[in-house]
Amino acid sequence: MSDHKPSFAVFRQRLNARILEHDNLVIKRFFALDSQCYREGALDPRTKEMLGLVASLVLRCDDCVNHHLTQCDQLGVNREELFEIFQVGLVVGGSIVIPHLRRAVNFLDQIEQQNQPPNSTD
Amino acid sequence: MSDHKPSFAVFRQRLNARILEHDNLVIKRFFALDSQCYREGALDPRTKEMLGLVASLVLRCDDCVNHHLTQCDQLGVNREELFEIFQVGLVVGGSIVIPHLRRAVNFLDQIEQQNQPPNSTD
Amino acid sequence: MSDHKPSFAVFRQRLNARILEHDNLVIKRFFALDSQCYREGALDPRTKEMLGLVASLVLRCDDCVNHHLTQCDQLGVNREELFEIFQVGLVVGGSIVIPHLRRAVNFLDQIEQQNQPPNSTD
Amino acid sequence: MSDHKPSFAVFRQRLNARILEHDNLVIKRFFALDSQCYREGALDPRTKEMLGLVASLVLRCDDCVNHHLTQCDQLGVNREELFEIFQVGLVVGGSIVIPHLRRAVNFLDQIEQQNQPPNSTD
Amino acid sequence: MSDHKPSFAVFRQRLNARILEHDNLVIKRFFALDSQCYREGALDPRTKEMLGLVASLVLRCDDCVNHHLTQCDQLGVNREELFEIFQVGLVVGGSIVIPHLRRAVNFLDQIEQQNQPPNSTD
Amino acid sequence: MSDHKPSFAVFRQRLNARILEHDNLVIKRFFALDSQCYREGALDPRTKEMLGLVASLVLRCDDCVNHHLTQCDQLGVNREELFEIFQVGLVVGGSIVIPHLRRAVNFLDQIEQQNQPPNSTD
Repeated sequence: MSDHKPSFAVFRQRLNARILEHDNLVIKRFFALDSQCYREGALDPRTKEMLGLVASLVLRCDDCVNHHLTQCDQLGVNREELFEIFQVGLVVGGSIVIPHLRRAVNFLDQIEQQNQPPNSTD
Repeated sequence: MSDHKPSFAVFRQRLNARILEHDNLVIKRFFALDSQCYREGALDPRTKEMLGLVASLVLRCDDCVNHHLTQCDQLGVNREELFEIFQVGLVVGGSIVIPHLRRAVNFLDQIEQQNQPPNSTD
Repeated sequence: MSDHKPSFAVFRQRLNARILEHDNLVIKRFFALDSQCYREGALDPRTKEMLGLVASLVLRCDDCVNHHLTQCDQLGVNREELFEIFQVGLVVGGSIVIPHLRRAVNFLDQIEQQNQPPNSTD
Repeated sequence: MSDHKPSFAVFRQRLNARILEHDNLVIKRFFALDSQCYREGALDPRTKEMLGLVASLVLRCDDCVNHHLTQCDQLGVNREELFEIFQVGLVVGGSIVIPHLRRAVNFLDQIEQQNQPPNSTD
Repeated sequence: MSDHKPSFAVFRQRLNARILEHDNLVIKRFFALDSQCYREGALDPRTKEMLGLVASLVLRCDDCVNHHLTQCDQLGVNREELFEIFQVGLVVGGSIVIPHLRRAVNFLDQIEQQNQPPNSTD
Repeated sequence: MSDHKPSFAVFRQRLNARILEHDNLVIKRFFALDSQCYREGALDPRTKEMLGLVASLVLRCDDCVNHHLTQCDQLGVNREELFEIFQVGLVVGGSIVIPHLRRAVNFLDQIEQQNQPPNSTD
């Protein structure tokens, strides 16, 4: 398991900081709302992250897909469930979604590899 | 409560039949796959319909939103939960989603009115 | 067979005229380019209208679909061929295309009815 | 000149109220942010409404286009300027924008008719 | 001429295999339907690949464009014809398509270079 | 300050030339129209580039965003104003715009660094 964050996460964090250090109240509030959106409510965060994932997939945004995949993984959504989310995204969004599905599965493979204990014999 | 189906449902049913009576195997299989997609699996139909709803909302398709709203309603997704699905769709998809949100809430009001017993005093 | 144009075609023609009577050179040139685009070239108009149809379908624009359906019909693209264009649009664009497919088939039915001789016994 | 609001504005207002009477904080905050977004800042409201108009046009949302057209009209954006905004939307978004452009010009004609004094001889 | 597949094709093939080795029937059937879609029917595969190309271009998916460009090239669609497909995609989809058009032409240049005999004097 | 163009600009220029050296009149005219679109008219080029920027942002095209950012920067649109354009794009287009916003701010940082005199002590 690698001990450095993938470059995507580093870039994401650095540029989010750059955006928020600028004094634009609407953008700051939007970012706050975006975090608030996935918190516990009538639906639990797990379901909401699943909703965020399928929405990102049909809108075909790789970075958003990766973000929600990471969140889903941390909240215990398993591979069978993730593939059924992919399935809904694929049927709703069509074959144009496939390249994003490939990159999502590739990212998921990386996440799952990182989740394995470093001295695993697999 | 009205005893006739709304015109949207009638049109939908009639034209689906028109499409499927044509001898096009790919289209027929796609329609079958679309039904299969929301059946019990690693995720239950309720969750899958919620995924279908948010995907339809961010892709801004009123007819698809109405269809999944109807399914969600029948599977017991309540108004609080529906509004949190709307919330995810709105934050992910932006203010461009608002006109579709208005029509979704209007349709939901109609569904809930139809669900009331005919001799209700409300 | 009706002897008056459907309201869609009338609105389309009236508003195109309204747009072009305004003195905006870029818009006028765009409209001219749009007509030129489907003329005979390395590809024939029939193939180009088929391309326009599938592009309109995956971008989910009913008016554009209707326009290219009319053109395809006049250039002799038959129902079997049209359904294979729909098939490509459906697979590429996903189930979100289905409501537009329903309206396309409904419009096609209207076109074909108008094409029949008025004293047909069908 | 008609003394009743067009049905679009009535529906918009009624359903916005329906949405906001529901106790969903994220949606309420989004609506507040949406209003705040177009207020005076480094850019004036007039420029911001023009930005909102072109964004709505390329995303092909008629209701959003109508809303920003109304705002632009009230802030004194004239027909020549509006057509140049349409021009940018048309070139960026392509011919798929044309049906929305037709409806926008139709709506603009209605706005301008309503702006005329009631006893105008035109 | 290079004797190794470009990295895009290698990644595509590897991840498609990863997706299909997972036991998800809907996704597997979708992939099968996607292949079936472009086979001989009322329209020939050449026309269908052209339809797939223009649909991919207006939906702005580089990987899909590259895939259908490769298929079109193998089915004998020549550069004049490809540019007319690009032309339809550009007019329908607008200037937002241009970056994808640049990458498509770059990919086409690479395909055509690979098609040349290795001891060509060009 | 670097004396070589960034690779994006080089690729853009080389492929635009490749596209235009092909004898396709519609594509050539479209490119000409695209340039003409942002010239002085009822609106000044500065406003038009701002419109082009927000349209590119909500349509989520990084290359288009970079192009209009460069133009805006050269026409004196300052960082406060740019962030308000971003703000409109973000509210209209939703959180799906955020990854593009990050890349836009990163590109803007690069532009502003290049604008600084080479012996600046910052």
